[in-house]
Amino acid sequence: MTSERVSKLLQEMTTEEKIGQLLQLSADFFEGSQAVITGPMREHDLTLATVYTAGSVLGISGAERVHQIQADYLAKSRLKIPLLFMADIVHGFQTIFPIPLGMAASFDPEAVKLASEVAARESAVSGLHVTFAPMVDLVRDPRWGRVMESTGEDPYLNSVLAKASVDGFQGDLDVEHIAACVKHFAAYGAPEAGREYNTVDLSEWRFREQYLPAYSAAIAAQAKLVMTSFNTLFGVPATANQHLFRDILRDELAFKGVVISDWDAIGELINHGVAGNLQAAADQALAAGVDIDMMSFAYAKYLQKAANLDESTRQLIDESTARILELKESLGLFTDPYRQVTPEREQAELKSVQNLNAAQQVAEESIVLLKNERAILPLARDQKLALIGPVANTGDLLGSWSWQGDQHQTPSIYTAMAEKFPQVSYASGCAYHQLNHREFDQALSTARQADKIIAVLGLPSSESGEATSMTDIRLPQEQLTLLQALAKLGKPIISVVVTGRPLDLTLVDDLSAAVVLAWFPGSRGAAALTNILSGAVNPSGKLPMTFPRSVGQVPIYYNQFNTGRPLSHTENDRENKYLSKYIDEANSPLYPFGFGLSYAEIKAQPISATQQGRSIQLKVELENTAALAGKTVVQCYLHQPVATTVQPVQRLVAFSKVLVPSKQKVELTLTVAPEELTYLDAALKRQTFTGELKFLIGLDSQHTKAISVAYQND
Amino acid sequence: MTSERVSKLLQEMTTEEKIGQLLQLSADFFEGSQAVITGPMREHDLTLATVYTAGSVLGISGAERVHQIQADYLAKSRLKIPLLFMADIVHGFQTIFPIPLGMAASFDPEAVKLASEVAARESAVSGLHVTFAPMVDLVRDPRWGRVMESTGEDPYLNSVLAKASVDGFQGDLDVEHIAACVKHFAAYGAPEAGREYNTVDLSEWRFREQYLPAYSAAIAAQAKLVMTSFNTLFGVPATANQHLFRDILRDELAFKGVVISDWDAIGELINHGVAGNLQAAADQALAAGVDIDMMSFAYAKYLQKAANLDESTRQLIDESTARILELKESLGLFTDPYRQVTPEREQAELKSVQNLNAAQQVAEESIVLLKNERAILPLARDQKLALIGPVANTGDLLGSWSWQGDQHQTPSIYTAMAEKFPQVSYASGCAYHQLNHREFDQALSTARQADKIIAVLGLPSSESGEATSMTDIRLPQEQLTLLQALAKLGKPIISVVVTGRPLDLTLVDDLSAAVVLAWFPGSRGAAALTNILSGAVNPSGKLPMTFPRSVGQVPIYYNQFNTGRPLSHTENDRENKYLSKYIDEANSPLYPFGFGLSYAEIKAQPISATQQGRSIQLKVELENTAALAGKTVVQCYLHQPVATTVQPVQRLVAFSKVLVPSKQKVELTLTVAPEELTYLDAALKRQTFTGELKFLIGLDSQHTKAISVAYQND
Repeated sequence: MTSERVSKLLQEMTTEEKIGQLLQLSADFFEGSQAVITGPMREHDLTLATVYTAGSVLGISGAERVHQIQADYLAKSRLKIPLLFMADIVHGFQTIFPIPLGMAASFDPEAVKLASEVAARESAVSGLHVTFAPMVDLVRDPRWGRVMESTGEDPYLNSVLAKASVDGFQGDLDVEHIAACVKHFAAYGAPEAGREYNTVDLSEWRFREQYLPAYSAAIAAQAKLVMTSFNTLFGVPATANQHLFRDILRDELAFKGVVISDWDAIGELINHGVAGNLQAAADQALAAGVDIDMMSFAYAKYLQKAANLDESTRQLIDESTARILELKESLGLFTDPYRQVTPEREQAELKSVQNLNAAQQVAEESIVLLKNERAILPLARDQKLALIGPVANTGDLLGSWSWQGDQHQTPSIYTAMAEKFPQVSYASGCAYHQLNHREFDQALSTARQADKIIAVLGLPSSESGEATSMTDIRLPQEQLTLLQALAKLGKPIISVVVTGRPLDLTLVDDLSAAVVLAWFPGSRGAAALTNILSGAVNPSGKLPMTFPRSVGQVPIYYNQFNTGRPLSHTENDRENKYLSKYIDEANSPLYPFGFGLSYAEIKAQPISATQQGRSIQLKVELENTAALAGKTVVQCYLHQPVATTVQPVQRLVAFSKVLVPSKQKVELTLTVAPEELTYLDAALKRQTFTGELKFLIGLDSQHTKAISVAYQND
Repeated sequence: MTSERVSKLLQEMTTEEKIGQLLQLSADFFEGSQAVITGPMREHDLTLATVYTAGSVLGISGAERVHQIQADYLAKSRLKIPLLFMADIVHGFQTIFPIPLGMAASFDPEAVKLASEVAARESAVSGLHVTFAPMVDLVRDPRWGRVMESTGEDPYLNSVLAKASVDGFQGDLDVEHIAACVKHFAAYGAPEAGREYNTVDLSEWRFREQYLPAYSAAIAAQAKLVMTSFNTLFGVPATANQHLFRDILRDELAFKGVVISDWDAIGELINHGVAGNLQAAADQALAAGVDIDMMSFAYAKYLQKAANLDESTRQLIDESTARILELKESLGLFTDPYRQVTPEREQAELKSVQNLNAAQQVAEESIVLLKNERAILPLARDQKLALIGPVANTGDLLGSWSWQGDQHQTPSIYTAMAEKFPQVSYASGCAYHQLNHREFDQALSTARQADKIIAVLGLPSSESGEATSMTDIRLPQEQLTLLQALAKLGKPIISVVVTGRPLDLTLVDDLSAAVVLAWFPGSRGAAALTNILSGAVNPSGKLPMTFPRSVGQVPIYYNQFNTGRPLSHTENDRENKYLSKYIDEANSPLYPFGFGLSYAEIKAQPISATQQGRSIQLKVELENTAALAGKTVVQCYLHQPVATTVQPVQRLVAFSKVLVPSKQKVELTLTVAPEELTYLDAALKRQTFTGELKFLIGLDSQHTKAISVAYQND
């Protein structure tokens, strides 16, 4: 597999140079165009010579600076091996798209791919080669802040979007694309109690059925890198987990690319208690097949000693070095270490009109209409609107993975609304977590003058993303107090919620005539939202995660497994105590997976289901009886087939986003791929369902119509 | 292994008779002294002849009735094989002890053993042979109602108490003892989202490390039966799970006894989706090694057909039949099918003074003092006390597994308090879930006359136990409103909480000077509580489960695993965002595992730690500086040793309940057994820790002192 160039280089490299390739440094090691060791970097005991052997750096960008650093580095690199530049480009570089959970709500792989293409282009012209994205961790706990970076709770949706994102980032890996690093292997999205970095524990069966598919899809799409996760799985921290990285990732999934640790994850093996010191941590990570050490310096400090002693260590170092060199080769760095970066190309690309328009388009696909009583939305232009709330006039709409985004240049919702609605007035009412009487009274007085109130509520981006786990998933009490006071005015309230996670919106739903979920919508999110509110764009987003009635229902997700005592909704069941239910709350969520309203009135009707080869084809008729066109997402669920292991009560196996013109019927065909008609048995062997299969077709996961087909598999 | 008698019987029995032994019927099939098939029983298609082959019956007791039914049955049984009588005797038969979670708070295996002995004696003289107890399911989610029947969150405590309970029930299996049925195999205590009967999913590694030990301890203590659990584990419902029952229970744990399904659990394999029909369900359960079918009738209806076709089915039926007959033999039923039951013996035993005193003693050991500001407790006799709250004057103190208990004959807390405190007055203030102004105002006016207020709050027994999962674990809002109003009176409040589960007591703690956790304390619980409040008994209970600050922290338990980014309590950590913590709540619970106050002032100091053979012996000095004696529980935790798998941050490995006389020092020795110094590696092989081991010694899990010892294991 190793190319001639890489083989040759390997022969020429010293062990020290090889170990250098395995070292990743942060931006702190570089000042201007040069490597430096200053301040806190000193504690890592590296010499400048070591820094000049490092294979990669993270967090540095900018055409000019990258060019200078690369030039300086190559001048000092004995074998002229270019440095790799990596960074977290998650939902846009300077042009910020909605957060990934929001983009997932588009249920549109093309939108996700477009966002990744734009992000790749902007970061490539800024000198970056690798992004630490997509995050494809399946998440079912809204307490976990990093849910914003995921695509939600469904293995199939996650898989489809994982592929779309990798395709978008990587393309053909030309100078307009960058390499994708799938993260976090594995199951980082299931920390116990929703507490960041906490233990993950799953049966291997469940892991493979529900968590592995999205990683697998990204790897099948040729993602070049995989990042280790911070968590433990099956009792062993991922970063030292040979079963995960050797047996599953390398052997089963045949991953040939580079494995990189998460930040200091090798060093953290000591805290995990599986390594007594950093030397042991280095040995364990290398044995698991971790190629690049991000910022623990364990490899730089200890591998040389181990390599001197031990042929097998030298062998592992060679393998890792080869993979890193191959990555550099695939990016064309040996041919052009600068990948054509110039300030001019950069200038033309960053935040171009085309890119910003793309961000707006994706935001429009991502916003979800959760409630719309008596068609209060869309809003006519000539109404008096009071825009109230702490999120109404802020640029904090980008979300937490937008370090190159600029809140201060991001139009607020009020700004965007004022352009479309001449009679919009604004008052904050309260801060995110603070309420003073003056602001509060002013908001009520502003609201009293209006026909309708738009309450723009939510959380700041600093309360979303990594290390923002929360035990209380309601809106801050100050905002709920404001909303309750507004509700007493007796005017219709349209609540707009800006959030990076599912929230308990029970009270918001109770008090509002309409509820619009904006997520963190990105650079052009305010314009997108305005288009949704005005009806210029008909909302089409669908929830990629269940919204609970309260945190006491967590984890709650649509594709739960069959139980022995399921709650159905018959009269008999209401009287039967001994069913799988709560005594103080419904089993059902506030808003189910796949749910989202449209201004159009669209119904889906399954027409036929037939086997074609090993696939199933479902014909579905969509009818829009409204006077305006609308997009919707037709969803096809496989309904609890009999198997030797328990199956989800329903499971998404196909979906399609379609435009249904006004007053028309549209027929579409959904294809359920053969791999969606399989399951893992208790021995972890893949089996195919056979016999009568029932599919549920609908526009959300709760309201569906069934159609069955006999499935034969030879 | 099979006895001569059993072998001989097996040879004589028809397949139909053998299948009969595998059938368990409910009490509905018997009227007076005779078998009947009436009403809803008809739907099961059984003939009376089949009923007379049934091997066991559940839920029938009473010396006279059992005698008559046994006599009638034997008269009609061709081979005179006695019927087995089983029932749920969980925390007492007619003399009701505290709920198991309460008894666990005693941290006293002798107390648990005593309770089981009394329960065994009372039920044995009433004609019972088998109890469906102990439940040893490890539980970490207070939303699950059946937590009341468990002994909490710790594998070691669960194991010690599992053995104590089995020993107490079974003794030498003479006519004063009954056979114990350990339940529920396996891991029923971990239903997802705390929702009853929901999916359980754990890695096999975690299952074996934390959940299996208590079952294993009960089986090592020679428990005669094991019950299947309702849940799925590793993707397969327990009742059809060959890995659980064949590989682990039979092969590894060498369990020779009888496996019984839980109620209709074989039939529920259809709902689980692993069996297409009842025939398939019967086949799967038999193949997994389930001997007795409780109330699904799958075996009775379908095994005959399978046996006609198939030698291996006949073989499985023979094995199951032999195990059931051996159980009958071990109970002496072939010698005396009546086990000496007479109305006279029954009369003398049930609710004897001795038994009731035992129940009171155990209740006194179980009550936990959670807060006692400025030593407001114990209460002097001459004070004016207002006893307020919906639980103050009710007999609903028994808990939900007390079908032979009688609430109406159970003294209320008010009754018991009035005997000791001449100036106690009472007002309900509200009902459990209802508040009316008259009652409310009356309570406030009663409270105004008093020196101190005792708020007796909690949940009815109907909101605890099986099928009572809750999403909100605070006290009902009505009771909190009452407490808040009482707090405004400015008098000290002593809150007494009656509950079957850990609750969010954050507000109760805030508003009270003292908090006393009574659990459901049983037949003599009110007297026990009164003794605690008066100081006649010094409280010594310790929490067997963590009490969270709110439901958003769930699951929260003391023996969490090491993470890579642990939160310590240094200044630096408070400023470091990137640690395993919440942004809106502490990681710590409201009350930690092992916590409980005393009226005495006792401190524990580790003196020495030495290796003795393969055990560790720890000498601990206890000093009581108070003027009164007190019991406490010295707890020894092993602190995060380095291993190849992640270990709990701390793990209970020894404890001892000791009395420390007033103004004295006591030295005691704790022995850590070799098996507590082992762990499972990722390949599920048991390994022994070596090197420096650190132990934490304290009177709860949070306040401890460390002592280390070098551990050598050859």
